[in-house]
Amino acid sequence: MAEPDLLTPEPDAPAPEEAEGHVTAALVEAVSETIRTGDAERLRSLVGDLHEADLGELLEALDADDRPGLVELLGDQFDFTALTEVDESVRLQLLESLPTDVTVEGLRELDSDDAVYILEDMEAEDRQEILERLPLPERAALTRSLDFPEETAGRRMQTDFVAVPPFWTAGRTIDYLREMKDAPETFYEVYVIDPAFKLLGTVPLDMLLRSPREARLESILKDEVREVAATEDQEEAGRLFQRYNLVSAPVTDEAGRLVGVLTVDDIVDVIHQEADEDIKALAGVGDEELSDTVFQTARGRFPWLLVNLLTAFLAASVIGLFEGTIEQMVALAVLMPIVASMGGNAGTQAMTVTVRALAMRELGRRNVRRIIAREVLVGLVNGVSLAMVLGAGAGLWFRNLDLGVVIATALIVNMLVAGLFGTLVPLSINKLKLDPAVASGVFVTTVTDVIGFFAFLGLATWWFGFL
Amino acid sequence: MAEPDLLTPEPDAPAPEEAEGHVTAALVEAVSETIRTGDAERLRSLVGDLHEADLGELLEALDADDRPGLVELLGDQFDFTALTEVDESVRLQLLESLPTDVTVEGLRELDSDDAVYILEDMEAEDRQEILERLPLPERAALTRSLDFPEETAGRRMQTDFVAVPPFWTAGRTIDYLREMKDAPETFYEVYVIDPAFKLLGTVPLDMLLRSPREARLESILKDEVREVAATEDQEEAGRLFQRYNLVSAPVTDEAGRLVGVLTVDDIVDVIHQEADEDIKALAGVGDEELSDTVFQTARGRFPWLLVNLLTAFLAASVIGLFEGTIEQMVALAVLMPIVASMGGNAGTQAMTVTVRALAMRELGRRNVRRIIAREVLVGLVNGVSLAMVLGAGAGLWFRNLDLGVVIATALIVNMLVAGLFGTLVPLSINKLKLDPAVASGVFVTTVTDVIGFFAFLGLATWWFGFL
Repeated sequence: MAEPDLLTPEPDAPAPEEAEGHVTAALVEAVSETIRTGDAERLRSLVGDLHEADLGELLEALDADDRPGLVELLGDQFDFTALTEVDESVRLQLLESLPTDVTVEGLRELDSDDAVYILEDMEAEDRQEILERLPLPERAALTRSLDFPEETAGRRMQTDFVAVPPFWTAGRTIDYLREMKDAPETFYEVYVIDPAFKLLGTVPLDMLLRSPREARLESILKDEVREVAATEDQEEAGRLFQRYNLVSAPVTDEAGRLVGVLTVDDIVDVIHQEADEDIKALAGVGDEELSDTVFQTARGRFPWLLVNLLTAFLAASVIGLFEGTIEQMVALAVLMPIVASMGGNAGTQAMTVTVRALAMRELGRRNVRRIIAREVLVGLVNGVSLAMVLGAGAGLWFRNLDLGVVIATALIVNMLVAGLFGTLVPLSINKLKLDPAVASGVFVTTVTDVIGFFAFLGLATWWFGFL
Repeated sequence: MAEPDLLTPEPDAPAPEEAEGHVTAALVEAVSETIRTGDAERLRSLVGDLHEADLGELLEALDADDRPGLVELLGDQFDFTALTEVDESVRLQLLESLPTDVTVEGLRELDSDDAVYILEDMEAEDRQEILERLPLPERAALTRSLDFPEETAGRRMQTDFVAVPPFWTAGRTIDYLREMKDAPETFYEVYVIDPAFKLLGTVPLDMLLRSPREARLESILKDEVREVAATEDQEEAGRLFQRYNLVSAPVTDEAGRLVGVLTVDDIVDVIHQEADEDIKALAGVGDEELSDTVFQTARGRFPWLLVNLLTAFLAASVIGLFEGTIEQMVALAVLMPIVASMGGNAGTQAMTVTVRALAMRELGRRNVRRIIAREVLVGLVNGVSLAMVLGAGAGLWFRNLDLGVVIATALIVNMLVAGLFGTLVPLSINKLKLDPAVASGVFVTTVTDVIGFFAFLGLATWWFGFL
């Protein structure tokens, strides 16, 4: 009696971030209780109707020990697609504890792209064991996908698709679809191919529906097709989808034969994942997940912090050059972090804009000079305005007009440097075919720290005659 | 004769970032020359076949003065959809210089969502002038969309859709589609509605095609429909698409009536745009575009830099408390930026992970305690390892073991603080219903600067007895 209510969020209780989906704390509680009592009937009534995304969220919310129980109790009512919706660590832990034949049966129900997604992160041995138990056609399709490198279109493609010859009519194609048994779960286009499986064109379903029954496909097909090579990077495929507003795209092998289809739902995940990677890379966070443990997380972030420690020593050694100056005027030590910090922030702004423009392929030979010039000038404009505030503030604080002039000048120099290196560093890293999001930050802030301290302390040494 | 070659990139010349699409420097050159000579024929042969995305890129690459010429020379061959692919400043500049009737005619050809996208950023007066010249049905549809708040589903929806009654058969629906005149350009689902325009369910096109002609829609429709309220935020709609792998979703008004359709191509742009906003917000860069001028850019970034200047004064004033200590031991001034910088980096890591988890709705009451605890412990683990490196380095550099102990301790303290505030700051900002990506950075680095300087200099003052 109470169960149906558990499926929808209570009207008042949940925080906004929990209201999404149907997975409330009460449902999680009820499910884990039911798993422990082994009541398959009740479990089905609780979660049988959940969408795969919600089922995935439920899996993540359960204790690790309860997860295999959920899968086994639900039996063939458990949709393995849910495993594509959970963190990698949760997925691997669950697959490890499931009997192999349960996994094999579960994978057989899936679209090939989802099965590949689940298989690709498993240990090679376990994966082999599962593949060997699959019927030959399925095994062959999955193996072919898995043979393509990671993060390529070949890994993300769905290998079931509808392909028909050009002389078929719209009517015959529709009749064929009605009778087809192994059609993909959803599809948006019919592919028209020649006998060698070369792609001649595509017919979107709405076009197929709107054509007269007797129209031949060769007369209605769209022959300007944006196809994706199976070895193409998934990020590149994502850009193609975004640029040309695609919902699906055919994937071809080296010989130009149609081997699969990419659909937009996978691409949406790719776009999200790539943006996420960029955001995290800019902050010095690697490929980590919310479910990672303390030690996994700490280990992943340590290298970046270590590099930062070494560059911080470099900046400190610049200060070390001016120990004598600081001894004579401690105010310099008080003020110097301001110049460095402002440069770091301005440099990060310029760098972020450059990294994003590179990621979105908006920056090319055509406009790169303009952007570098713009960033330097932005540094100058903001440098001059902020230098007036900083100069006045510092001068008043220490009742020393000269100190105000020195720090203002140093700030302008550092802001110019920030604009210049904020663009040049990611551009150079990109030229070297490396990901500018990963390494730019540490270089840019090192430069602005070193120049910031050097400009301020050096200028002060010269101005006040401390040499 | 040479023209067709201009449409494809030369095999050797272009850098990878320019190779995408068909817009080469040579094409831009040829087009702007052709515009100046006014040769409409040649212009059409050059750009007539370009996809709207490529046409948009071409527009951006042209001199501002040449852009209206391109539109007017191409006449009805110019696809106004290209205007949805260019930066806002380019779009507004171009619309300003086009005669109103050219714009009116161009907009009439568009899907309603594209027309709204172009109209929404225009001056209210200009927009009104254009709307008044449109035929009543189109004007009414556009006005209704424009009445919804910015960045809502109502603004992004397409108002042409296919809606039919539940007693129709699959066959009758297909016949209706064949004869329909004002069908949307592309669609993926047919909507089944009652006489009051309330949504009963959806029939995806592949399901419609695979059903027998005599099947009634009410027997094949999917009644678990994920509909979007027209007033819903577009970001929220994007999450729904992503979570449930949708390609389109019906949009309903307050009365529950079907008023439009959101399609995944718009949502892909929304997802991209929102991720982009988050990346830029984290770096203190607002809503800026690559085509912005120096002054627009500088003005947009200034407020963040000014706030940073004020917080830098705060950190400097903490150092000011210890002037006496620094005078007695200048090494402290040399080393203190290291402690602050390490805390800033660790805090940014924790903060970025938290901001992303909040944006993706992965963080709720269920796991928030675990994440805070994890981040503090990560700070402790990395703090202890890095403290050993830093302590040894500093101790050796200044041949002062005590100094090594003091800086190592201060680093551990600051790393703990970084983990704690790196999570608490974005969580608190989120609680206040503000965007944690925008303001978290400045708070987190202020805390790690202040605590970094205070812990190190305070500890040194006490340890070495400088009081």
